[in-house]
Amino acid sequence: MTVTDTTTTAPARLLGLLARDLPPDRLATDPRTLAAHATDRSGTHPEGLPLAVVHARRTEDVTVTLRHAHALRVPVVPRGAGTGLSGGATAGEGSLVLDLSGMNRVLELSPEDQLAVVEPGVITAELDRAAAAHGLRYAPDPASAALSTIGGNIATNAGGLRCAKYGVTRDSVLGLEAVLADGTVVATGRRTVKGVTGYDLTGLLTGSEGTLAVITSATLRLRPLPAATATLAAYFATFEAAAQASHAIARAGVVPALAELLDGPVLAAVDPALREHGAALLIVQCDGAGAAAEAQAVADVLTPLATSVRTTTDPAEAEALLSARREALPALERLGRPLIEDIAVPRSRLAEAAREIRAISARHRTPVFTIAHAADGNLHPIIVVDPALDRLPDAAWETAGEIFALALRLGGTLTGEHGVGVLKRQWVADELGPAAHALQRRLKQAFDPHGILNPGKAL
Amino acid sequence: MTVTDTTTTAPARLLGLLARDLPPDRLATDPRTLAAHATDRSGTHPEGLPLAVVHARRTEDVTVTLRHAHALRVPVVPRGAGTGLSGGATAGEGSLVLDLSGMNRVLELSPEDQLAVVEPGVITAELDRAAAAHGLRYAPDPASAALSTIGGNIATNAGGLRCAKYGVTRDSVLGLEAVLADGTVVATGRRTVKGVTGYDLTGLLTGSEGTLAVITSATLRLRPLPAATATLAAYFATFEAAAQASHAIARAGVVPALAELLDGPVLAAVDPALREHGAALLIVQCDGAGAAAEAQAVADVLTPLATSVRTTTDPAEAEALLSARREALPALERLGRPLIEDIAVPRSRLAEAAREIRAISARHRTPVFTIAHAADGNLHPIIVVDPALDRLPDAAWETAGEIFALALRLGGTLTGEHGVGVLKRQWVADELGPAAHALQRRLKQAFDPHGILNPGKAL
Ligand SMILES: Cc1cc2nc3c(=O)[nH]c(=O)nc-3n(C[C@H](O)[C@H](O)[C@H](O)COP(=O)(O)OP(=O)(O)OC[C@H]3O[C@@H](n4cnc5c(N)ncnc54)[C@H](O)[C@@H]3O)c2cc1C
Ligand SMILES: Cc1cc2nc3c(=O)[nH]c(=O)nc-3n(C[C@H](O)[C@H](O)[C@H](O)COP(=O)(O)OP(=O)(O)OC[C@H]3O[C@@H](n4cnc5c(N)ncnc54)[C@H](O)[C@@H]3O)c2cc1C
Repeated sequence: MTVTDTTTTAPARLLGLLARDLPPDRLATDPRTLAAHATDRSGTHPEGLPLAVVHARRTEDVTVTLRHAHALRVPVVPRGAGTGLSGGATAGEGSLVLDLSGMNRVLELSPEDQLAVVEPGVITAELDRAAAAHGLRYAPDPASAALSTIGGNIATNAGGLRCAKYGVTRDSVLGLEAVLADGTVVATGRRTVKGVTGYDLTGLLTGSEGTLAVITSATLRLRPLPAATATLAAYFATFEAAAQASHAIARAGVVPALAELLDGPVLAAVDPALREHGAALLIVQCDGAGAAAEAQAVADVLTPLATSVRTTTDPAEAEALLSARREALPALERLGRPLIEDIAVPRSRLAEAAREIRAISARHRTPVFTIAHAADGNLHPIIVVDPALDRLPDAAWETAGEIFALALRLGGTLTGEHGVGVLKRQWVADELGPAAHALQRRLKQAFDPHGILNPGKAL
Repeated sequence: MTVTDTTTTAPARLLGLLARDLPPDRLATDPRTLAAHATDRSGTHPEGLPLAVVHARRTEDVTVTLRHAHALRVPVVPRGAGTGLSGGATAGEGSLVLDLSGMNRVLELSPEDQLAVVEPGVITAELDRAAAAHGLRYAPDPASAALSTIGGNIATNAGGLRCAKYGVTRDSVLGLEAVLADGTVVATGRRTVKGVTGYDLTGLLTGSEGTLAVITSATLRLRPLPAATATLAAYFATFEAAAQASHAIARAGVVPALAELLDGPVLAAVDPALREHGAALLIVQCDGAGAAAEAQAVADVLTPLATSVRTTTDPAEAEALLSARREALPALERLGRPLIEDIAVPRSRLAEAAREIRAISARHRTPVFTIAHAADGNLHPIIVVDPALDRLPDAAWETAGEIFALALRLGGTLTGEHGVGVLKRQWVADELGPAAHALQRRLKQAFDPHGILNPGKAL
């Protein structure tokens, strides 16, 4: 790519206008800040460094930034905490990073209406903690909740452990304030739990990966803390047996609050002693007034299939049972750089997916570690690569590609919760089909005619 | 309006093309069929009769119809069972009715994946019945379930009694097949419970009132039948006390499966003997493994506020308790023609809304009967008019208008579940605000550039 005069001019003019129109502390162009805001947790590295970072502190900073960027056709990359796993917040040469992490106030928390109004930079776990003080919780709990922002969660429609019962982020978003590409502020949705006036813009912006609008505030549904919780941990001789067991729970009519599945290689990475209990671990939590009865029903289903089943209603012991899950990713990070894939398949195909992933792994001699949100059929096959390598080995690429193809073959999806970002773009058209893909592009046009919002991502 | 040559020509050409390209039994132009398909249950009567009715039996009938109508710019009104309450399926002079009620096959019912794939004309209650044979249910249960179609439910994002706990129709739609205005078939969504590839077209089409695309098949989520159910019926001295009680249930952290509230005038209409028990009746159902414990918690909350509380776990007795709710609308229909309004307010404002509605009713000397899906803050204030009248009395219009204004003033919405249709169009811009309204129109354009799909509805 050659840098022409027009492109050097537009960025320079943009920086001048932003310096003039934003409050003094908002704009950063020092190389350290630029480098720190150029990539996310996907490990993708775009070419070059972004032009500048705008640290927004209020909606007007966002409107000013977008208005100028729109007029000058400069690409803008919205950014939360940068914990994304698909490269959605990566920002290459010539783009402007719009950092929302400083807009981090909880504007309202209404126990009366069981909702909160928050700025996009609020950390997920902090909102949950604030809600807990009123006997409520913010249900979506990505494993990154201690770091990720609500804005990033909404932009990716993040999932989490509890979405087995309480749904994904979209199920907790009642309304949004968002800024369109040209700087227009729109309000979507409402404060009521129900409402059908107009098209569902709230749901459309949720999961749009920063390509349709920048979220500047969100009205979120809170739910009562459950009256009781019961947790089970069961080991199995094979991963397939554990997958079948998780499916048997659904067939028994129980909707667990979470059902996390770890395969043998993950157990061995966390602690070789765990691997001795079995080749797979299924952790199930039931909650609500019927938690104990449901846990009993789950235990009845698991016992004939498992090598061991343990149940507890004690919160500390439950944490201990869940700790293997929490430690899985840190453990894999000790082995190298984890590439976390994110396919979902119809629930009944989970065992088949696991079997095929093992075959793919063997064929490419590439170890794959698998964690699954089992109740949702959402698998995270993880390839660990040598962090010293400059580029991904071909075998890792091929393994990932075959895993995506497998997901589609089983009637599933490329991404259950992490988003398309830049990493999965090449497979999107295969999943959507040409007609839906074309329609999606027309929608993007209707929101962002000049394509300045996070270009090259998601679609 | 003068009928010009161009408009007379386009319809005539369309009928010729449809007669040529559709199978013989699909096209109807006899006046009885036209009259039967010109209006819905809103009581709105458009001017004139539609051009023709296409009775679609398969997706190709829909693509053929839309391709020709699009080329000739003839408006098309998609239609399910015509039970809509906002005039969404009304079809006036010059429009073509596309009747989907004959596409009524359940294409697949998978107990394994807890989903069904159905054509749009399937009757809501029939899907639920088919699911029950496998220990499952289709959760959304509009009071019209015995008549309404799944396609109509999706197009209006219908609510129902159980949505207090299980959400509205959108929460049960996983994917769609739909035909765009120009006849292109698109597939949206997926068979998995989670997935974030591309924008959420499924959610966008849900609730779009036939203005964005015609739904020709739907992949729907089914849920396990609950392990147990417990039902309570409580009478109160005032409607406000009942509204406060329903709010107290939420504050106690219980999410009931349904919470239906009937005011004194409704009780008197159903059976004057009921009115002697109190001025309001709240019916609450809890379900799942914790049903009995939750019902106990609800009873504890209600007892100090109610004049009487009855609880049962017996299904027959529960039906008896619910019968007042089921009989409310038929009872009002015996009094005249009910105009069913459909506002929603934040849950904490329910009592205030009821109080204000009573004041509006008194001011206009127009009796208002109120039923509410209390847990959702969704009120149905019902004005009963003399069926012999040609047009609505001014007082009825003014009462309705003030009720809408009240909903917006309390931070609520014009329509919780029935849709905007033609009846509420004039208030839509007030609720959405100019920026969101303009954006919605751009979306409509991206789907339907010539505006042939259900023009004059929803936006
Ligand atoms: C250890 C670890 C565990 C994880 N576990 C989970 C998990 O369980 N479930 C899950 O779903 N994800 C998980 N993730 C992925 C990641 O945390 C989520 O995608 C999260 O939602 C990203 O939030 P963020 O604030 O870091 O967003 P970023 O990474 O900064 O951005 C993500 C995307 O959102 C856009 N964006 C951010 N803010 C805004 C805004 N205000 N307006 C518009 N667009 C915006 C960006 O442009 C980008 O496309 C995990 C990541 C890590 C590192
Ligand atoms: C007694 C009674 C009780 C009711 N109770 C409830 C209730 O509890 N909750 C509730 O939400 N509603 C209720 N309603 C309203 C009504 O039943 C719902 O709006 C229902 O969803 C309409 O379904 P239908 O098949 O009759 O659709 P129609 O009335 O035929 O059409 C409704 C709208 O959907 C569009 N449409 C229909 N089919 C398609 C399709 N395949 N593709 C695209 N667009 C389509 C039409 O153009 C129209 O805009 C009630 C109505 C009555 C008469």
